[in-house]
Order: sequence, then structure tokens, then C-alpha cells
Amino acid sequence: MSITLYDLAAADTNVRFGPHCWKSRLALSHKQLKHETVPVAFTEKNKIAISGQGLLPVLTDGDTVVSDSWDIALYLESHYSQGPLLFENEDAKFHAMSVNEWCNNVLSVHIRPLVIMPIFRIVREEDKSYFRQSREEKLGLSLEAYNDKARGSIVELNKTLDTLREVLDDQSYLTGQSPSYADICVLGMFLWIACSNEVALIDIGFTDEEDIFYQWYQRMLNHYRDVIPSRLL
Amino acid sequence: MSITLYDLAAADTNVRFGPHCWKSRLALSHKQLKHETVPVAFTEKNKIAISGQGLLPVLTDGDTVVSDSWDIALYLESHYSQGPLLFENEDAKFHAMSVNEWCNNVLSVHIRPLVIMPIFRIVREEDKSYFRQSREEKLGLSLEAYNDKARGSIVELNKTLDTLREVLDDQSYLTGQSPSYADICVLGMFLWIACSNEVALIDIGFTDEEDIFYQWYQRMLNHYRDVIPSRLL
Repeated sequence: MSITLYDLAAADTNVRFGPHCWKSRLALSHKQLKHETVPVAFTEKNKIAISGQGLLPVLTDGDTVVSDSWDIALYLESHYSQGPLLFENEDAKFHAMSVNEWCNNVLSVHIRPLVIMPIFRIVREEDKSYFRQSREEKLGLSLEAYNDKARGSIVELNKTLDTLREVLDDQSYLTGQSPSYADICVLGMFLWIACSNEVALIDIGFTDEEDIFYQWYQRMLNHYRDVIPSRLL
Repeated sequence: MSITLYDLAAADTNVRFGPHCWKSRLALSHKQLKHETVPVAFTEKNKIAISGQGLLPVLTDGDTVVSDSWDIALYLESHYSQGPLLFENEDAKFHAMSVNEWCNNVLSVHIRPLVIMPIFRIVREEDKSYFRQSREEKLGLSLEAYNDKARGSIVELNKTLDTLREVLDDQSYLTGQSPSYADICVLGMFLWIACSNEVALIDIGFTDEEDIFYQWYQRMLNHYRDVIPSRLL
């Protein structure tokens, strides 16, 4: 059996910036599962037709096809006993699911303005018009006008992270002394920024080397270094 | 000092159905804090002008005014040491915040079709046109068409609750053997259904007396019986 992850990619197919794709990639690393990745550009959704839907990530494992990062995490946990657990128990699974919702509904609101123009710049020329049109329709704003919200978003993002900082004040990871899927969900969101921006996370202005959140981020990158782009290490 | 909660009310001002208002009411009960409530109808937002915004709940405590149920929970926890804690520690606070986001962004999607027509029926005559217009604008559908989604929502709600059932399989409450703010957030969402519907929760069709979730619900109602409407007990 071999595992393949279909992963959102930029014009440079080495650049992968999808937050949900990152969650699955990190889950594979967490469970020490060998896998290959297939880069998929925004307008290459035909590559994942087998999944019967149009969103990334998609994971195939032999004949099994799983889409949606949460379902992929559940699939890996229930089918592979090797490596550390993604969820220590049912409590931890519920916690991680809730944290994932917080990432997708709260963190994402503050992060999206920070990634919109950077992503537009790095996607393939032939994807730019799709990206612009689909995003502007959803946002009700031009990409450039949305990008103008970035400065305010940095302030909001910084405030929002205070809840994490309080947790990380007396433990190394969100659920204890080793990372679990809750940590992976949050890291996925920050790899969205880190992998789409040319500017380093620390230079965006909401964090610094003394920041307990930044220290967690560095710890996480190091923990999952086998899948993290070397320029971030 | 006296605490007052401004609470969303129906034409019958004894009927309170706002899910976020319920979170604050339950938090007050949890901490055994004496309080009064002021019923506020949809078009009586002038009653909360003091809060500088238009959403319920609003809590006043002497000269202090706090709006937003999450901020109210944080305020009560940090200003009143009496009664059980809402958050056992910083971990539990982060967990509860995430659960709250899950409630507001996932549970609410499945619950809203179940409450839209019931709420329309119970609000004051003079609030009906405001309610219809504001909701239809947000939903992009007539109240009646949205109400047609209720049957599908019951199926989805039932599925979504499986994650809770797994947690409740070996503990009485979401975070252990006694309720905390995470449980309160979920109960608030179900009081939204229970207090706006004439039909009992158990007759809506996603739960039954054998259901571990329903047993939790009954345990919660009983735990907070001092603020729960007697018809639900």
C-alpha cells in the first residue's frame, strides 16, 4: 500500500501553501507514515476527480480515497497504529475538533488578508484569473482592497493569539508536553502565511523571538522538520 | 453591587431563547451569583444602548458594562471567586473557547433551520417584520424556505453530536465529572431549540431517552435547574 497526498501548489511546485493540506501533511509526519505528494494547482482539480469533490487535500491509500483534512486525520488514526497518536483519547479528539473549528473560523479571518496577495503572486499565470475572480466574488472586494486590511489583521491576530500564549505559558504544546493534532491544526494555519509570504513570519510584525507563541512555532517546525521547507528551519 | 443580565425575550417575556444569552445566564448560575434579568425584544435595542453595541447578552455589574457572552464569562470568572470555576485552568479556557467556536460555527448551522419559524411565531407582533427582513436578507431565503431545511438539519445535527457522544461515553460532562463552561456553551445551543419550540427536544427526532447525549442534556438541565424554565424540567 502506498499513501499519496494531493496538495495545493504554487507555480513553483515545491511551494505548498494550503493550510488544510498542511494539516494532513503534518499528520502523516506525526504518525511517521511514508507518503508521496502530488502538487495540484488551483485549476488542476481534474487531478482529484477520483474524490468526487473539488477541495484539497485528498489522500489516497491503495484503493481508499479520503478528502477533507479532518476526515484524513480520523482515517490515519484509525488505520495506522504506528507512531504517536494524533488524539490521546476521545476527549482529545473533541478538543482537537473544536480547535480546528477555531482555526477555520477565527484565526482564518485574521490570516486571510495576510495571504491573499502573496498567494496571487505565487500561483501559476494560468491560475491568476481564476483565483482573482473566485476570491473577489467571495470577499465582495478586490484582492488589493482586501490586502489593505492586512495591517489591522496583524493587530487582531496578535490579540487572538493571547489565548494560546496563556496555554503555552506552562506547557510546551497545546495539549501537554508533546504535540498532538490540535497543535497541528494551528501550525497548518501559520504555514499558510509562512509558505505564501516572502517575508518571514517574524518580520510580519505580530510576533518576536521572545514571544511564547513564536517559541512554540519554532518548536513545532523543528518537531515536523522532515516535511517542513528548509527555508523555514 | 447588583448584577443585571439583558436577555433576548419573546412576546411572553418569560420566554428567553437566545443561545448566547443562555450561556451567560448559565454561567451566573454556575458561579452561584445572584442576578436580575431584563427582557429585551428584538426591536428594543435602545435598552442596551449603554453597551455601545447592539447585540445581546449585555451584563451590567454596578457601573461595569460587559457585552458578548465569552467576555461575560471571562469577566465573571476573574471578578468573582465564589462558586465553582467556569474554567479549571488555562487549558480548560482554551478548550472552552474552541468548543464555543464549534457551537457558533458548526452546531448553529444545523440548529438554525429548527428555530427560525418557531422564533418568528413567538416574538412580539411589532418585531415580526424586523425579524423576517433581517433574517431573510442574511439567509438569502424566505423564512419558510429555510424552514424546509429542518428535516435535513435534524439528520446532520444527529451526526454532529456523535463526537460529543464519544466523549460522554466515559464521563458525565464534556470536561470531566462536573460541568464547566464548555458544557454551558453546548447547553446554550440546545436551549435555543428547547425554548423557542413548542415541541419537546426529544420529539424533534434527533435524540431519545437512551441517547447518551440526551442523558447529558437532562443532567445539565437538572444541574442548572435554578435558571431553567420549569416546563423543561
